[in-house]
Amino acid sequence: MERIPILKMGEFLLVSIQVDMHDRLAMTLQEDLTERIVSAHARGVLIDISSLDVVDSFIGRMLGHIAAMSRILDAETVVVGMRPAVAITLVELGLSLPGIRTSLNVEKGMDLLRRARNENSSGPGEASRARTQD
Amino acid sequence: MERIPILKMGEFLLVSIQVDMHDRLAMTLQEDLTERIVSAHARGVLIDISSLDVVDSFIGRMLGHIAAMSRILDAETVVVGMRPAVAITLVELGLSLPGIRTSLNVEKGMDLLRRARNENSSGPGEASRARTQD
Repeated sequence: MERIPILKMGEFLLVSIQVDMHDRLAMTLQEDLTERIVSAHARGVLIDISSLDVVDSFIGRMLGHIAAMSRILDAETVVVGMRPAVAITLVELGLSLPGIRTSLNVEKGMDLLRRARNENSSGPGEASRARTQD
Repeated sequence: MERIPILKMGEFLLVSIQVDMHDRLAMTLQEDLTERIVSAHARGVLIDISSLDVVDSFIGRMLGHIAAMSRILDAETVVVGMRPAVAITLVELGLSLPGIRTSLNVEKGMDLLRRARNENSSGPGEASRARTQD
C-alpha cells in the first residue's frame, strides 16, 4: 500500500496518516494532494495524525511543505488529532510547526476551516498572513 | 501503530483502513468502534477501503461483523472507496458482502447515511428492525 488515501469531504480534503512516512511516500502524498486540491477545487486540507506516536523533524517538514503548497493553491491546512506526548516532544525538539494550524480533532478542524473560509470570502482578498481585519 | 484511528464527523464515524489487517488489529478495531459508537452517540459508520488492493474473506468477515455490531447499536455501516479490481475479486471469490452497504466515496456514503437516517426517523421504524417509533 504505497499511497495514503485522500478523502474528499465537501470542499475539504482529509488525509489520515497511519503509516510510517518515508521519503518516497511523503513525495507521493505531496504530489497527490496538490493534484487533488486542484481537481477537487478543495478549499481546505485536514491532516489527521492521531495515529502517530512520534512526529520528527522529517514529518514536521513534510507538514510544513504541504501547508505551504496548499496555501499557494488557496487551500488552508489544519493538522488535527495530535497526541499530547507528540506536542511535548515537538516543543522539546524545538520544532514549533511554523505556518501550520492545529485543531483538537477533525470536527473542530472543519469548523476552523469553515470560519477561515468565511473570513476570507467576506474580507478583502488575502490568503497568507499580513491580513487586516475588516 | 497498533490502532486504526476512528474519526468523528458530526454524527458519523469514519474509519480509513490503510494497513494490512491481522486478527488482533481487527479485534481491536471492532472493540474501539463499538465503544466509540456508544460514547459518541454515532448514527453511522463509514469504512474507507480505498487503500486496499485486496479484500479477502477475512476482511470481508470483519466488515460483516462491524456492520452487524453497528446495526445492533443503531448505527448504519457503509463501506466506501472500493476499487474496481477488489469488487471483481470479491465476486470471483463468491464473497458478496451480505448486509454491507457500499458507496463510491465518502461523500456519497455520507449522503446515503443521511438519507437512511431521515427515512428511519420519518418512516415506520426500522434500523435495527422491528422497533416502534415514539
